[in-house]
Amino acid sequence: MRIARFKTCKGDIQYGVWEDNGRIRLVAGDILDLWAVTDQCIDREEIAQILAPVCPPNIFAMGLNYRAHAAEGGVPEPDHPLIFIKATTTVIPTDHPILLPKPAPDAVDFEAELALIIGRKTREVNVEEAAGSILGYTAANDVSARDCQMKHDRQWARGKSFDTFCPLGPFICIGEDPDSASVRSRLNGEPMQDGHTSDLIFNCRHLVSYLSHQFTLLPGTIILTGTPSGVGVHRNPPIFLKDGDLIEVEVEGVGVLSNPIVCSP
Amino acid sequence: MRIARFKTCKGDIQYGVWEDNGRIRLVAGDILDLWAVTDQCIDREEIAQILAPVCPPNIFAMGLNYRAHAAEGGVPEPDHPLIFIKATTTVIPTDHPILLPKPAPDAVDFEAELALIIGRKTREVNVEEAAGSILGYTAANDVSARDCQMKHDRQWARGKSFDTFCPLGPFICIGEDPDSASVRSRLNGEPMQDGHTSDLIFNCRHLVSYLSHQFTLLPGTIILTGTPSGVGVHRNPPIFLKDGDLIEVEVEGVGVLSNPIVCSP
Repeated sequence: MRIARFKTCKGDIQYGVWEDNGRIRLVAGDILDLWAVTDQCIDREEIAQILAPVCPPNIFAMGLNYRAHAAEGGVPEPDHPLIFIKATTTVIPTDHPILLPKPAPDAVDFEAELALIIGRKTREVNVEEAAGSILGYTAANDVSARDCQMKHDRQWARGKSFDTFCPLGPFICIGEDPDSASVRSRLNGEPMQDGHTSDLIFNCRHLVSYLSHQFTLLPGTIILTGTPSGVGVHRNPPIFLKDGDLIEVEVEGVGVLSNPIVCSP
Repeated sequence: MRIARFKTCKGDIQYGVWEDNGRIRLVAGDILDLWAVTDQCIDREEIAQILAPVCPPNIFAMGLNYRAHAAEGGVPEPDHPLIFIKATTTVIPTDHPILLPKPAPDAVDFEAELALIIGRKTREVNVEEAAGSILGYTAANDVSARDCQMKHDRQWARGKSFDTFCPLGPFICIGEDPDSASVRSRLNGEPMQDGHTSDLIFNCRHLVSYLSHQFTLLPGTIILTGTPSGVGVHRNPPIFLKDGDLIEVEVEGVGVLSNPIVCSP
């Protein structure tokens, strides 16, 4: 089942199940608490804009969680999940432009990722219990200004938290296994990354369990699970995003998260 | 003027001006938008609990922003503000216990800080305009698990984001200059830190301006401005927080933020 959050042409914000017949079956209740799929349907023409799947209270992200990505960066694999945090102001939906930030426009890179969405307040769950805390998953782009991240700053926070640096969506995939999904990116239609979550060093259930022993995971929390190899900075020559580019992240079961690149106004 | 956010004995949540005569003058409206002090007063006996001043959408924090603190750590002063992010789930009010986290209970340290509270949506303001974006300031404790921060993790995110690791309060000081305030901590009554924001490498208006050129600062955003020298980890022998301790942060104009230390249940 694929669920989208959207604004209708009337201006209200709703969740609905995206059906193959071109109809959207509305969701009643609170998707981060009690909810149900109703019999009420609307047409795609009644949707003005697909929104990011949630407004997260926190975004926890994993560094170096695919072996081939750690290897391409020439850094050892972590022996426990390497956590960093992105500001909540980074979130944008599909089709919204990624802005090249004025303080660091020249080394902006893409990172295709599967993003978990926490469905209920979660604290100290074991690996077996963790699946019950996951509402579903979506596609994410952990956009990163490599000059800030790798040269100018001692922490990754700024380089990964410029406005628009966390595209999410377009759909929440519910009922499929996040540990068995392909994760790909394309730049202007050209394949860049081609990974699979079965190659994660710390898989999705393990990550939720581990994080839940560090922090309370509130409903709507986003967990970016890491990016496979093929990012721009480790290519020879490096590839960075520039004005007019189109970057797409495709996660199996979710669909394509597509964002144009634009200079900051 | 000192304003508190509190829960009344009737269970509703309000803001009010803490007056010297023992009365609290209620605030009407939204303190992060349009608000005014009313003529309606209540007594302190009608207050069940002082709450953290805001529920922040993001917490941006500064590393090494006092010269003496950079020196005690043996690291060079940064040439631009060193930003990190704390999870929003770290926030607790005064009197609430700081929990020693089960994954890292042995090297939990205190950091007394002046915390700025952003009062309106702010983007790309200069240093002169920055003061207009600050609602006021409060006291904060940037609690830090030093073993995670300095040994086990490559990023500071986890070690500074365990639940309860950001006490805030008790009051918002409005109308005073945040760049002219003493910042102190006491452990079980013993002085630990004694700094003054006039010694900040990057002062408060500079920080707001700088941050506003990196990120959109939403109303309620917290900016931790850095800690003066005297933290536990750089003492000989080091001092870390343990079950039964009481840590106090006193910021001039705000009052005392007081939190007992308790083992995680």
